[in-house]
Amino acid sequence: MNIQTILHQIEEEVKPLLQQGKVADYIPMLAAVDPNQFAMSVATLNNETYNIGNYTKKFSIQSISKVYTLIAAFAKMGDKIWERTGREPSGTPFNSLVQLERENGIPRNPFINAGALVITDMLLSIYKNPKTELIEFINQLAGKENIGFDTEVAKSEKEHGFRNAALTNFLKSHNNIFNSIEAVLDLYFCHCSISMNTEELAKSYLFLANGGINPLTNEAVLTPSQTKRLNALMLTCGTYDEAGDFAFRVGLPGKSGVGGGIIAIIPGKMTVAVWSPGLNKKGNSLAGIQALELFTTKTGISVF
Amino acid sequence: MNIQTILHQIEEEVKPLLQQGKVADYIPMLAAVDPNQFAMSVATLNNETYNIGNYTKKFSIQSISKVYTLIAAFAKMGDKIWERTGREPSGTPFNSLVQLERENGIPRNPFINAGALVITDMLLSIYKNPKTELIEFINQLAGKENIGFDTEVAKSEKEHGFRNAALTNFLKSHNNIFNSIEAVLDLYFCHCSISMNTEELAKSYLFLANGGINPLTNEAVLTPSQTKRLNALMLTCGTYDEAGDFAFRVGLPGKSGVGGGIIAIIPGKMTVAVWSPGLNKKGNSLAGIQALELFTTKTGISVF
Amino acid sequence: MNIQTILHQIEEEVKPLLQQGKVADYIPMLAAVDPNQFAMSVATLNNETYNIGNYTKKFSIQSISKVYTLIAAFAKMGDKIWERTGREPSGTPFNSLVQLERENGIPRNPFINAGALVITDMLLSIYKNPKTELIEFINQLAGKENIGFDTEVAKSEKEHGFRNAALTNFLKSHNNIFNSIEAVLDLYFCHCSISMNTEELAKSYLFLANGGINPLTNEAVLTPSQTKRLNALMLTCGTYDEAGDFAFRVGLPGKSGVGGGIIAIIPGKMTVAVWSPGLNKKGNSLAGIQALELFTTKTGISVF
Amino acid sequence: MNIQTILHQIEEEVKPLLQQGKVADYIPMLAAVDPNQFAMSVATLNNETYNIGNYTKKFSIQSISKVYTLIAAFAKMGDKIWERTGREPSGTPFNSLVQLERENGIPRNPFINAGALVITDMLLSIYKNPKTELIEFINQLAGKENIGFDTEVAKSEKEHGFRNAALTNFLKSHNNIFNSIEAVLDLYFCHCSISMNTEELAKSYLFLANGGINPLTNEAVLTPSQTKRLNALMLTCGTYDEAGDFAFRVGLPGKSGVGGGIIAIIPGKMTVAVWSPGLNKKGNSLAGIQALELFTTKTGISVF
Repeated sequence: MNIQTILHQIEEEVKPLLQQGKVADYIPMLAAVDPNQFAMSVATLNNETYNIGNYTKKFSIQSISKVYTLIAAFAKMGDKIWERTGREPSGTPFNSLVQLERENGIPRNPFINAGALVITDMLLSIYKNPKTELIEFINQLAGKENIGFDTEVAKSEKEHGFRNAALTNFLKSHNNIFNSIEAVLDLYFCHCSISMNTEELAKSYLFLANGGINPLTNEAVLTPSQTKRLNALMLTCGTYDEAGDFAFRVGLPGKSGVGGGIIAIIPGKMTVAVWSPGLNKKGNSLAGIQALELFTTKTGISVF
Repeated sequence: MNIQTILHQIEEEVKPLLQQGKVADYIPMLAAVDPNQFAMSVATLNNETYNIGNYTKKFSIQSISKVYTLIAAFAKMGDKIWERTGREPSGTPFNSLVQLERENGIPRNPFINAGALVITDMLLSIYKNPKTELIEFINQLAGKENIGFDTEVAKSEKEHGFRNAALTNFLKSHNNIFNSIEAVLDLYFCHCSISMNTEELAKSYLFLANGGINPLTNEAVLTPSQTKRLNALMLTCGTYDEAGDFAFRVGLPGKSGVGGGIIAIIPGKMTVAVWSPGLNKKGNSLAGIQALELFTTKTGISVF
Repeated sequence: MNIQTILHQIEEEVKPLLQQGKVADYIPMLAAVDPNQFAMSVATLNNETYNIGNYTKKFSIQSISKVYTLIAAFAKMGDKIWERTGREPSGTPFNSLVQLERENGIPRNPFINAGALVITDMLLSIYKNPKTELIEFINQLAGKENIGFDTEVAKSEKEHGFRNAALTNFLKSHNNIFNSIEAVLDLYFCHCSISMNTEELAKSYLFLANGGINPLTNEAVLTPSQTKRLNALMLTCGTYDEAGDFAFRVGLPGKSGVGGGIIAIIPGKMTVAVWSPGLNKKGNSLAGIQALELFTTKTGISVF
Repeated sequence: MNIQTILHQIEEEVKPLLQQGKVADYIPMLAAVDPNQFAMSVATLNNETYNIGNYTKKFSIQSISKVYTLIAAFAKMGDKIWERTGREPSGTPFNSLVQLERENGIPRNPFINAGALVITDMLLSIYKNPKTELIEFINQLAGKENIGFDTEVAKSEKEHGFRNAALTNFLKSHNNIFNSIEAVLDLYFCHCSISMNTEELAKSYLFLANGGINPLTNEAVLTPSQTKRLNALMLTCGTYDEAGDFAFRVGLPGKSGVGGGIIAIIPGKMTVAVWSPGLNKKGNSLAGIQALELFTTKTGISVF
C-alpha cells in the first residue's frame, strides 16, 4: 500500500484517541497546547517525504533533543562517554533519584534526565559556544536554518525545574558534573525547548536509518557501528519506563518527549516522526504510539 | 566472508576469555563444569548449519528454557498472559524480590525468575501432562526426539532453590500463582534442567527468524505479529540487567542462561547459539557475548 | 487520680473510636471479631491490678508473642542473637522483603516478621519440645496454667501464610534459617495464635518493669541490663513503621499485634495492656494507641 | 559513685578508642581536627556541672544544631510542623534521597538532613532576622553570650554542599520549601557551623531534662508534653540509622553530629555532652557512644 494512503488511514483511526491523553501541565506553555492535534511525517532514504495533519506546526521537542545531544557527544568523545553514564533501561520514571543514589551518581542511561544532564555537561566542555554550535548542528542535520530555542519555554522550565536542579546537584556531589550547576541547567533547558515540526524531525534523524551518513550532505555524522548502537539504545531506553512496551508494540528504535513528539527509526529505510500532545500515564504521546504501531502493522515493516 | 571461516576466527579470538569467566556455583552440577569449553552453531533459513567447538556437547540450558515456556503459553493464551506479567526491562538482578514487591506481585517481564514462575504456573493449567507435553513441544521445535530433562540437575536446583521458593510464595500471596507452590517449582526446575547442545538450540529457535513458521514442518508456532513481539521482548529483557548492554554490543534479540548458553535471533536470516560456561558479573556467558559481538561485527549483520 | 477512675474515663473517651478502625481480615478468624470491644488492664509492682471493659475476653495476641520468643532466645543465647538480626527500626511495613534483600538476609530487628522468623528458628534449636516449652514459659510469666495456642487460628494463618513462607525461604537462601521451612513456619504460626486477655498480658510482662525479675516468683528472667535493652528495642521497633509516632505520642516501650492488642511497659512502676480489634492504617489498634496516650497524659507518667 | 570519678574512669577507658574512629573529611575544617581529643560534661538539675578532658575546646556541633532549630520551630508553630515532616526513624543514611522520593517530599523526621532543611525553611518564615534571632535563642539556652557561627566552616560546607542542595531542590519540587533555595541553604549551613564546647552543650539542653523549663531563667521553652515528645523523637531518630543501636546500648534520648559531639538527656536528672572527633561507620562519635554507654552502666541510670 502507498505510504500516503496509510498515513491517511492512521490519521482517521487515531482521531478518537486525541482527547484521551493528558497534555503535560508542569509549565504553562505546554499546558496551553490544544490536545486535538496530530501530525505524522515519513522521510525515506529515496529522498521522499510523506506528511499528514499539522506537520508544519512547530512543537516543543523536549526529550527528543536528548538524542541530538547524545549524538553530538558520542561523535566527539566516542566510547569515553560510557564512563559517566550506563546504557541499561531504567525501570523507574525518567526523573527518579532513587536509582541514581543506588548506583553512586552514574545514571542508568543517557535518555533519563540524569543521564541527559551528564551529556549536557560534556557538551559544555566540548563546545566553545555550546548553544550556538548545538543549534547549528541540529539545523545541519535537518537541512534547515530556522530551527531555534524557544526562550520562553526554556525560562519557564527553569522556574519549575527544581527536580532537575536536584538531579544536577546530586550528580555533582558524586563528581559527575564538571561545569557549574547553572551552566548545565541553562543549556539543558535550552535544548529541551527546541521547536520543530514532524517533517523537520523526520529529516534530521534520517542519517540514523542510513548507517550514520547524512543523506543530504553525504557526510558521516556517526560511524556505522556507532549508529547501530545508538539505534539499539533508543530501542531499549528511548521511552522511559515504557521502553519494553514500546519495543513490544512498535518494534522500532524511538525517542519520545513530553511535548507529544516521537521519532522512530527504520534502519535501512526511513524515519517516522509523529506528534500529538495528549500523553498516556507514562508520559508518552498516546495517539503517537498508537500511530506508530498502526504504521508498522499496516506496512509490515519491523526490525524483528 | 564464509560463515564457517568466521566461526573459526571467533573461536580463536575468544580462547583467551574462556578462563576469565566464573562458572555458576550455586549447585554442584554446574560448578563441576569445565570452563575451558566453547561451542557455536548457526542455523539458517536456507537449511544450512555451521558449527564450531564442542557443539555436540549437551549443557544445562537453564533460563533459555524460559523462552520455550513463554512461547508455549503465548501460543495458547495470546495476549491474556500480559494480565499476569509485564514486559518491561527490570533494572534489577534476575531473582530480585524488590521490584516484585513495589509492583504488587506482577513481575516486570516473563524472563526474570518471577515472571517465568508465573508462566510456569500457566503451563500447569494449560497442559494435562505438563512435563511430557512441554518436552515434546521442544523436541518438535528442534526436530529431535532425544531432548530431555536432567533430573539430577533439577533435584539439585530444588534443594538449593529457596530464593525461587520465596518468589513463588510471594507471587501466591499476591494471587498470581494458581497451582500449588510445589507443582510450580517442580515444573520450573525441570524445564531449567533441560540439556541441549548449541546445534539443537539454534535449530529449535529458527522459527523466530522465520515469522513464527517452523521451517522443518512449515507449521506456525506463533503468528508473525507474536513472533516480532517475542523478538522485541528478547532484545529488551533477554539478558537480565545487562539487556541494554547486550543490545548495544550485539544488537540482536537474545536469551542467556547461567549454564553459559545464549541464543540469538537474526530475523529473516538465521539463529546463532553459543555456549561457554564461564560467566561475567551479570551472570551471562563472558566468551559467549563476545562471540556474538564478533559475529555481528564480522558479518555486518544487525537489526539496526 | 486513682488508676481505676482513669481507666473508666479512658473507656468513655475511646468509645467513639471503636467503629473507626478496621479489623484484620486476612484470615477468617480475625475478620469475624466484633470491632466494638475494648479492654484495658494495669498491673503494678505493688501487686495491684486494675481492669476495665472486656478484660476477661481472650483474643489472638499475634505479634505480641514476638516479645515472648525474643525474651526466650535472649535469655538462653545472650548477645549471640544479634549476629542474626539487627536492632534498628525498619522504616518499611512489617512484612516487607525489600529491606531484607538490601541487607543480605539479616532482618532489621526481631519484631518485623523476618526477624521473628529468625528468632523462631533459634527456639527450634534451643528447645527439645519447642511448642510445649514455649507455652510453659509464657504461662509461668503470667502465673497461669491455661494459656494455650489456638490451633484453628494457627491453621488458618498457615493456609494464608504465603508471605511468611516467602520470607522464610528468602532467609534460608541467605543461610539465616537452620531448621526446615515447615518447622519454622509451624512454630511461628503457633506462637502468633496464642490467646490471652489483657489481664494475663499485663501480668506476664510485669518483669520488664521490674529489672527482669518476675515479681510473682522472684526469679530473674533477664538481667537488668538485658531488660533495659529489651525495653529500648520495644520503644524503637515495637509498632512497625509507626514506632516513631508511638514513641512520640505514648512515650513508652510497647508491642502491638494485628489482633488489636498492645502491651506497654512503665519501667519501675507497672505494665499496661490494652485491646481493641479495630486497626489503623499502620496495623496497630486505633483505640488502643489512643487509650495509652490518654493514660500517659492523665497519669503524667512517662519515661521521658 | 561520684560523677567526677566516673568521668575520670570513662576518660581512661575510652582512650584506646580515640585513634580507631575516622574524622569527617568532606570539608577541610573538619578533616583537620586532631582525632586524639575527648571531652565530657554533665549538667544536673541541682545546678552542678562535672567536666573531663578538652571540655573548654569548641568544636563544630553540626547536626546537634538540628535540635535547636526543631525546638525553635516547635515552640512557635506547635504540632503544625508535623504537616511538613514525619517523625519516624528513617532506616536509611541521613542524607539519602531515596525515602524522600518514595514519600513524596515529606521527610521521615526532622533530624535527617531533608527534615532539618524543612525546619530551616520554617525558621526563615518565623524569624525576621533568622541568623541573629537563632543564635540569640541558643545563647539564652546556654546562659552564654559568646556562642556564634563559624563562617569559615559554613562557607566550606556550602562549597561542598551539593547533596544538601539536591535535597532542598527536591523538597521544593514537592512544594515543601517556601523560601528560596539559597536562603534555606545559607541558614542551614550557618546553624550547622555553630561552635560550642561540651559544657555549653550540656547546659543549653538542660531544660529538656526539666520538663521544658530553662533552670537558669525559670522560663518555659517548651510545654511538658512537647518536651516529652522531643525526647522521644531524639531517642528514636537522633542518631540516624544507628538510632536503634544507640537506644539499645545507651538507652537515652540523644543527638549526634559529624563534628564528633553527642548530647544525651536523662529526664528529671541531668544532661550529658560528649565530644570525640573520630567517627564510626554510621557517622557517630565512636568514643562518644562508648562513653555514654559506660556512663549509663556505671551510674545505673536509664529511662528504661
